[in-house]
Amino acid sequence: MLYTEMTKEQLSAEKASLEKQYADYKAKGLQLDMSRGKPAPEQLDLSIDMLLRCLDGDYKSSNGIDCRNYGVLDGIPEAKKLFEEMLDIGDDEIIVGGNSSLQLMYDTIIRALHFGVYGGDKPWGKCDKVKFLCPVPGYDRHFAICESLGIEMIPVDYKADGPDMDVVEKLVSEDEEIKGIWCVPMYSNPTGITYSDEVVRRFANLKPKAKDFRIFWDNAYCVHHLSDDHDTLLNIIEECKNAGNPDMVFQFTSTSKISFPGGGLAIIAASKNNIDFIKSQMTVQTIGFDKLNQLRHCKYFKNFDGIKAHMKKHAAIIQPKFSVVLYMLDKEIAPLGIGNWVSPKGGYFVSFDAMEGCAKRIVSLAKEAGVVMTGAGATYPYGNDPRDSNIRIAPTFPSVDELRQAMEIFCVCVKLASVEKLLAE
Amino acid sequence: MLYTEMTKEQLSAEKASLEKQYADYKAKGLQLDMSRGKPAPEQLDLSIDMLLRCLDGDYKSSNGIDCRNYGVLDGIPEAKKLFEEMLDIGDDEIIVGGNSSLQLMYDTIIRALHFGVYGGDKPWGKCDKVKFLCPVPGYDRHFAICESLGIEMIPVDYKADGPDMDVVEKLVSEDEEIKGIWCVPMYSNPTGITYSDEVVRRFANLKPKAKDFRIFWDNAYCVHHLSDDHDTLLNIIEECKNAGNPDMVFQFTSTSKISFPGGGLAIIAASKNNIDFIKSQMTVQTIGFDKLNQLRHCKYFKNFDGIKAHMKKHAAIIQPKFSVVLYMLDKEIAPLGIGNWVSPKGGYFVSFDAMEGCAKRIVSLAKEAGVVMTGAGATYPYGNDPRDSNIRIAPTFPSVDELRQAMEIFCVCVKLASVEKLLAE
Repeated sequence: MLYTEMTKEQLSAEKASLEKQYADYKAKGLQLDMSRGKPAPEQLDLSIDMLLRCLDGDYKSSNGIDCRNYGVLDGIPEAKKLFEEMLDIGDDEIIVGGNSSLQLMYDTIIRALHFGVYGGDKPWGKCDKVKFLCPVPGYDRHFAICESLGIEMIPVDYKADGPDMDVVEKLVSEDEEIKGIWCVPMYSNPTGITYSDEVVRRFANLKPKAKDFRIFWDNAYCVHHLSDDHDTLLNIIEECKNAGNPDMVFQFTSTSKISFPGGGLAIIAASKNNIDFIKSQMTVQTIGFDKLNQLRHCKYFKNFDGIKAHMKKHAAIIQPKFSVVLYMLDKEIAPLGIGNWVSPKGGYFVSFDAMEGCAKRIVSLAKEAGVVMTGAGATYPYGNDPRDSNIRIAPTFPSVDELRQAMEIFCVCVKLASVEKLLAE
Repeated sequence: MLYTEMTKEQLSAEKASLEKQYADYKAKGLQLDMSRGKPAPEQLDLSIDMLLRCLDGDYKSSNGIDCRNYGVLDGIPEAKKLFEEMLDIGDDEIIVGGNSSLQLMYDTIIRALHFGVYGGDKPWGKCDKVKFLCPVPGYDRHFAICESLGIEMIPVDYKADGPDMDVVEKLVSEDEEIKGIWCVPMYSNPTGITYSDEVVRRFANLKPKAKDFRIFWDNAYCVHHLSDDHDTLLNIIEECKNAGNPDMVFQFTSTSKISFPGGGLAIIAASKNNIDFIKSQMTVQTIGFDKLNQLRHCKYFKNFDGIKAHMKKHAAIIQPKFSVVLYMLDKEIAPLGIGNWVSPKGGYFVSFDAMEGCAKRIVSLAKEAGVVMTGAGATYPYGNDPRDSNIRIAPTFPSVDELRQAMEIFCVCVKLASVEKLLAE
């Protein structure tokens, strides 16, 4: 029976029952963490041969460079090639950076603030104000970069197949202070959706008022499918070329959730003009990134096929965890009409929308019962979810058993918060 | 016989003889590189067990963190400890960063421009002008950072035991726009000298007009002795504390020339106040650095004694190369009175001062004969050596045989350029 159709008496009885269940869980003193998109140890075990056996006495790149010494700013050829295949881009459209795509994004914005972007007529930092569009719910670390660097964030709601492009098109065409937009186009963090071909093409065909506008295309989950029945994403760099906007996009990805978080490779991909411009500044910041780790990855994965095969092993570990989350939500929450979610075909998250005004209460209840969730509001700029509704569920790190317990508790918390709200109305 | 005591006729005869020698060398079509401070392959071989055998199935840090996964901004405890012992600092005075101390320096200045430094009242970038003192000759990559970021550079000459502190003290006490000074305090790049205790104490006791002034203490060669008869350097962080200026210094070092250039560990060390302030900004830029590489280094070196023992192996390889350079200069140049240099007890360079107005010509002659040197002027801000005199010799990368050939050619070029100059006077 839907909670919204219950009488006050029925709700009160339900509340009493839920409070008892909640107290029982709390008494167990569990400590479970579903807060961050971290791979489980079993996923990390998949790549350990890279650490043990890959650098076997030959430290030369395919073009004869000693990867143990200084040199090479943009990556050894085979490392570039690995990502070129993955993203279907050219070898002058990429820089293989350090261990963190977040750092590449942050540094890209810092450079834009200081030097401007290719083709721009002044540094972003010389403008009175810099604004970014932020599709919501989105990735808290993107928003933290903007907040830290004084960039004003304008939320734009998601639709089923991507950001609301009517709003995006209108805003960027009218406001010269809007210099960028954050996108996680595939298995979006946290919604799990993938941008449709139409949405990608509308992005590529944007007519921004700011000539130095850039799309920040954080393609973090481009190969992170949960099964063979997976989403596909158009090539934004290609589409931007076709649309006559070749320089409008910066694409990022990494192997953080392919090999090792913090021990992987991160890249930025963009037009040759953008890449050359970035390299001319980056060469002052560093002599080069860790080529030994590049070599290690190349020797281990060999090519894009190697990565695809590897990602199937990841899927075999994490797909059952997504099933637990979705099974519990379907069983416990769906019949009550107190939440919405989408079943994603890849990525690292399930995005849960509670009844309005309940998210903070749910996360707080869960925490008190030993289940740590991503903070409510974290998926919105300035931590401000105007509906106090969205909660990001990160199922990958806990074991299946832990996850089952955590989801039982979570569902009780969702129900309890919903009943409380309905009784207070 | 000193060239300066030769008659025009003697000089002309000498020139003819040198031109013949030069032509003979040129005809050999050699390709030798003494341009950058790169370790030789034999030095890199010293550390290969780190790549092959160190990560043996145990990926936990000493405090139980899985180094293969996300987390830990400032470094795993054993990595911090390694550098704490090396620099004699506390565990709240360090961040183990990525693979590049240059990047840590660049990012530290970027942060200062954007956010200011701890205790400052505004970002450096909000000042009309930002200036750095640059002891000369110095490290070209330091100067490139300033030039790229629009920081005005003021050269200060070196004396035998460090920068001319009378000038440094006067300038920083008078000019509020001077926000920093670059120092390579031990086996300085390129002069090879180490700052005396008195110089270090005068640094620690500076009374800058700018309250947000910082010393950039690039201690790149702190353990890079050529023999047991080595220089020592006072602990700047300790001295700054004693002087009541605890927050005035940022220290940097790395294992680039201990383990692998580009594949090593870099750190920033400073007061707890500085480190906490930096971490509060850095946490937005990255989730963390490569902990697997930290673990690899710790398992391999074990502790500071391990590093010291390792550096003796480096010295055994590169000390003979320094001997070749100094032997050739003593034999070929000293009797002619056409150059000055110091015999360093460590580091990566021999700094050669030619007769005024000859450095560009020497480097150009050498290049034409197949010997690449660091560009003349590179050791000065804006590439401008006002005396056109200083040339940085980097002896480590070539083999001893190559180096002997390269130095023969270099010495002929020095003589030829000097004769040309004296004849033109």
